[in-house]
Amino acid sequence: MMQDRHILLAHGNGGRLMRELIDAVFVRHLGNPWLDADADAAAVPLGGTELLLSTDAFTVQPLEFPGGDIGSLAVNGTVNDLAVAGAVPLYLTLNAIIEEGLEVAQLERIVASMAGAARAAAGVVVVAGDTKVVRRGEGGGLYLATTGVGLRSHRAPPGPAGVKEGDRLLVSGPVGDHGIAVLLAREEFGLSGELASDCANVLGLAQALLPLPGLRFMRDPTRGGLATVAHELSRASGRAVALDQAAIPIRPAVQSVCDMLGYDPLYLACEGRILAAVSEDDAPAALAAWRALPEGREAAIVGAVRAGRPGVALRTVLGGERLLQELEDDPLPRIC
Amino acid sequence: MMQDRHILLAHGNGGRLMRELIDAVFVRHLGNPWLDADADAAAVPLGGTELLLSTDAFTVQPLEFPGGDIGSLAVNGTVNDLAVAGAVPLYLTLNAIIEEGLEVAQLERIVASMAGAARAAAGVVVVAGDTKVVRRGEGGGLYLATTGVGLRSHRAPPGPAGVKEGDRLLVSGPVGDHGIAVLLAREEFGLSGELASDCANVLGLAQALLPLPGLRFMRDPTRGGLATVAHELSRASGRAVALDQAAIPIRPAVQSVCDMLGYDPLYLACEGRILAAVSEDDAPAALAAWRALPEGREAAIVGAVRAGRPGVALRTVLGGERLLQELEDDPLPRIC
Repeated sequence: MMQDRHILLAHGNGGRLMRELIDAVFVRHLGNPWLDADADAAAVPLGGTELLLSTDAFTVQPLEFPGGDIGSLAVNGTVNDLAVAGAVPLYLTLNAIIEEGLEVAQLERIVASMAGAARAAAGVVVVAGDTKVVRRGEGGGLYLATTGVGLRSHRAPPGPAGVKEGDRLLVSGPVGDHGIAVLLAREEFGLSGELASDCANVLGLAQALLPLPGLRFMRDPTRGGLATVAHELSRASGRAVALDQAAIPIRPAVQSVCDMLGYDPLYLACEGRILAAVSEDDAPAALAAWRALPEGREAAIVGAVRAGRPGVALRTVLGGERLLQELEDDPLPRIC
Repeated sequence: MMQDRHILLAHGNGGRLMRELIDAVFVRHLGNPWLDADADAAAVPLGGTELLLSTDAFTVQPLEFPGGDIGSLAVNGTVNDLAVAGAVPLYLTLNAIIEEGLEVAQLERIVASMAGAARAAAGVVVVAGDTKVVRRGEGGGLYLATTGVGLRSHRAPPGPAGVKEGDRLLVSGPVGDHGIAVLLAREEFGLSGELASDCANVLGLAQALLPLPGLRFMRDPTRGGLATVAHELSRASGRAVALDQAAIPIRPAVQSVCDMLGYDPLYLACEGRILAAVSEDDAPAALAAWRALPEGREAAIVGAVRAGRPGVALRTVLGGERLLQELEDDPLPRIC
């Protein structure tokens, strides 16, 4: 049962309130054996084979930002959900809701960027689409939604249920880049910077880990950042997760902006990273496999699954430990 | 090359300007062998089988109206595109873009309605979804996008390329119901009425015609109405189409409202109808098959394909003939 009578921005932030909304409204009425609100992609039988399906809407503002735009985000976001589920993306569908008055030249840049991202993502192609135009004042410039269809390339990782005490948590690169890049691009804070979104497909990173027998779980930390995925893992596995703050890669410039403006990079979106849970035995191989890739050069082991009650603890740089809360409010709406 | 420098409402109306936008921007950058901007659904190979994919976004305003709501529309609209392509819909994905402040109770009604529409549509299930919340003033209450995945149940109709001189055009029921129901629900005109949207799935209607060897083409006349589908057929087949105004079923109440407000029902959206092109020989059987169904009781033969240059002519009730223009401006934005 929803506590709130009206939808709040926080219902879209990837955290607790959004989970409540999804469970209380969407899963309640639409629930069926294949609908798993906790999974990145759905695996469904079709015509003698198994299809993987994933979908996302994109409402990022501004539409273009250093390192990407809503178009490349729309391709990579959906491709990445298929990638971490162990699939190769084959086809995309695309919905565009355009606000009256949008500059055609901007739309063209965004669609061209989408095409480039698709080519880079195993040549995934857009095979169906729809366009709607809404009145000025009833849209956010441009909203996109993509659905991806893929086939498994590897046995699926067992997921949170397969996570064990002693497993290691790895992240493929610095966190919070996307969130900060979008924030700065809004030009509300008068800061310039060379910070760019990490918007990219994670197919190479995923494919590097999928053959490892000790791979338990992978997810791309988008809305709500690393902390949110850590919470999802803890909740779904029923296990305690501990993160080591000093080990988490964060670009110094990202940390500076966060310090200045009061954001915690652990809650800021990434759009080209993977958080993985890997057995203690396979963790070194996983790290090496990632560091061998250009996009994984800064990969790191950032924590572990340990004994104790579910929850996420952060060992701070000062050596103490505190509980990392689940995201409540939305630090940055329309981030992806 | 786009003529306009900014997106206009008319770019979303289903007519000529929308086609230009799709060709000049989307197909230009994203084009590939499977992307057919003129088809209702894409047919793509996957894992040894052939998948049909269709997608649509829904921006109807108001969100609820007599005979339906944005939820049932979102299910039926996408199911119908698969149905007219000769497929049975199996899975849907769902994107919801919610405007801050939307009443939770309204969202619940809409999602419950979606679930009901899905059960009625061969039990199609929603297997993946995403929810975003945008700030007050940056959304239209609620926007939805659905993608449908299906398998062929019958050999695909040949499509416009298979259309021949002498073929008959059939419509499965009265036109313009949806457009007028939404218009009245906006309460801008001070008219009350018992008019309701025809929002429904057309699976039964499609399945009734698919076995006929003389079936050439089927489409659901949504944005831009019957006239727009007639133009699409004419353009894609390169043939002349003639419609018989007196034969086109239109509810008297719909005609009255149109007369009062200056709308032409031939351009108003339907959301539960099919326009079909059938060989002269099979037209009587097609008509009988439709009339045997509750949803096809008022089906009629409304025109024919004839010799001459491409275009759509209308034989009026007065016995004369005039050219039916392709839709330019948007009579009713946010209709579906």
